[in-house]
Amino acid sequence: MQTLIFSNNPAEVLSQQIAAMSPRGVYVLADSNTARLVWPRLRDASPALADLPVIEIPAGDVNKNLESLTLIWSELQRLGATRHSLMVNVGGGMVTDIGGFAASTFKRGMKFINVPTTLLAAVDASVGGKTGINFGGLKNEVGVFSQADTVVISATMFDTLPAEEIRSGYGEMLKHGLLQSDDALNSLLDFDPVADNATEMLRLVEESVEVKRRVVEADPLEKGLRKSLNLGHTVGHAFESLAMAKGAPVPHGYAVAWGIVTELVLSHMQRGFSSDDLRRIASYIERHYGVPAITCDDYPALLELMSHDKKNVDTNINFTLLDSPGSVALDCTASADDIKAALDITRDLLHI
Amino acid sequence: MQTLIFSNNPAEVLSQQIAAMSPRGVYVLADSNTARLVWPRLRDASPALADLPVIEIPAGDVNKNLESLTLIWSELQRLGATRHSLMVNVGGGMVTDIGGFAASTFKRGMKFINVPTTLLAAVDASVGGKTGINFGGLKNEVGVFSQADTVVISATMFDTLPAEEIRSGYGEMLKHGLLQSDDALNSLLDFDPVADNATEMLRLVEESVEVKRRVVEADPLEKGLRKSLNLGHTVGHAFESLAMAKGAPVPHGYAVAWGIVTELVLSHMQRGFSSDDLRRIASYIERHYGVPAITCDDYPALLELMSHDKKNVDTNINFTLLDSPGSVALDCTASADDIKAALDITRDLLHI
Repeated sequence: MQTLIFSNNPAEVLSQQIAAMSPRGVYVLADSNTARLVWPRLRDASPALADLPVIEIPAGDVNKNLESLTLIWSELQRLGATRHSLMVNVGGGMVTDIGGFAASTFKRGMKFINVPTTLLAAVDASVGGKTGINFGGLKNEVGVFSQADTVVISATMFDTLPAEEIRSGYGEMLKHGLLQSDDALNSLLDFDPVADNATEMLRLVEESVEVKRRVVEADPLEKGLRKSLNLGHTVGHAFESLAMAKGAPVPHGYAVAWGIVTELVLSHMQRGFSSDDLRRIASYIERHYGVPAITCDDYPALLELMSHDKKNVDTNINFTLLDSPGSVALDCTASADDIKAALDITRDLLHI
Repeated sequence: MQTLIFSNNPAEVLSQQIAAMSPRGVYVLADSNTARLVWPRLRDASPALADLPVIEIPAGDVNKNLESLTLIWSELQRLGATRHSLMVNVGGGMVTDIGGFAASTFKRGMKFINVPTTLLAAVDASVGGKTGINFGGLKNEVGVFSQADTVVISATMFDTLPAEEIRSGYGEMLKHGLLQSDDALNSLLDFDPVADNATEMLRLVEESVEVKRRVVEADPLEKGLRKSLNLGHTVGHAFESLAMAKGAPVPHGYAVAWGIVTELVLSHMQRGFSSDDLRRIASYIERHYGVPAITCDDYPALLELMSHDKKNVDTNINFTLLDSPGSVALDCTASADDIKAALDITRDLLHI
């Protein structure tokens, strides 16, 4: 059973959790940013953390690769880690993904704690057990499902994040709100994530993580219900990959937010999702996220990217759609023509 | 739930199993030996197997490494495998270990079938869910626990194996017999594994695999009971590593057979294991396996190697010992002096 802790005193909570697990050896994983900016704050706030060895990997999703993974395995080996040791992943989703994979495979598996340092990692990557690396040019191509034993989530971590990173994480929270209920969605649409309100933010994050936790517990290996978490992602991943290919990458959560608009258009077309809700959400997203740089010339590339998504069986393009907030329809498919029509309407709604 | 099939018609059984799983794409993994000598026999015996793509890796435990793993991932990617595809590992423990790891991590996990082609793989590596590779000079340093969905075991696979390979596999069977009962042990000591008797061999293999399956099912992640399978291995691994370091490697099952003798000596010293049984087993092992090339000058190196075993917590040296055949004592420890004494007695018993 996974322990999730929401606290604005992360150093103290982390020390307590480590002590409670009685590990033989504790190894911190950080990237070159969190090793410099975040870990020292935690380390200096608790004597129990002061002397832990830190394994540092280069920052950035481009380094979530076999080379960094090999570096982590080698360092664990050199430092004498055993299967009874503990790894503490301090960073964004890149660090929790690769660190979770390294820990789950070193000597066939040691325990790990995630300390997400970005909002996106807190509400998405740190919970759910998806670990892995990019490989052969594809994202998350290699990995395992393996839950962190403990996740320590703190809004104080987000103090120093750029506004763009906050909004990116909030994109996943909008998705969770849509999966949950009208009420959950409304409290998110009433909040400005960039406003400095750590107390309300922590409350919304906790609510959001609970949505994900319930889904993941019901379906740890993504056999069914978990596909609901794919809302916004079939189109979102395509936006993200296209932007990358054009040399103008966009934050993951921005791509998801825009993907949500297109998939809610499909939900409207196929499942009667309310056009009022659709307009309200599109307007919030345009205001906070701007719009994706696409024209109708990009449609063939976007469709091609959607058909490569891991969750697809054969060549159908698979979507998670909504009847209404909280009412999810799994395993929907759409034709190329329907998807193009939905992209047209997306461009209308977002004034592209 | 894992399916184990014992049959002397492996091609037919394998075809049926593949059909029953309805995978999207089937990929055979073989090493340079089994791709040439074994897979063609299976392929030519069933039309359903005729056109399956084969991923070939270089043979030998020395190639159970990151380079071969990367090759498998790349090939799966190039061939268009998805998480709904199936991998069929055709080979010895090297192939089932690395193939199981590759399959369990590609797109966070696809199904796999093991078709062990050696006796050792049939009774040991193909069942139990231990997958992985060697890394940084240490065996099985990286991997996951992941069960093959189906294992197809056939005595016809062993037809062409050298006598040394048969005896090596039989070393693990002796271990299973000791863990099981007097009767199981006696039927093994009454049989000559190199005698060409495929019917009796398949019966003994089935009995042996059932011992392992029961233990693994009760303790898939090696938290307790599964340590019983470590009988003979704390000392056996040290014999194996020492022989490797001296440039005169010995088959795994030979090292285990010799390790069993030393650990039964410890069982006699600590737990009253019968000296008659001990002599009878030592005599069988000397007759069929010869003896390890050790002198008392090797003791410090052997002790050092034992203290590096993955199953050890802190610096104690951990053993699985027996009160009698079928009566197992987990988590025993022994002092350096006791281990040296046991090695002295081993050399006496084996006339080294």
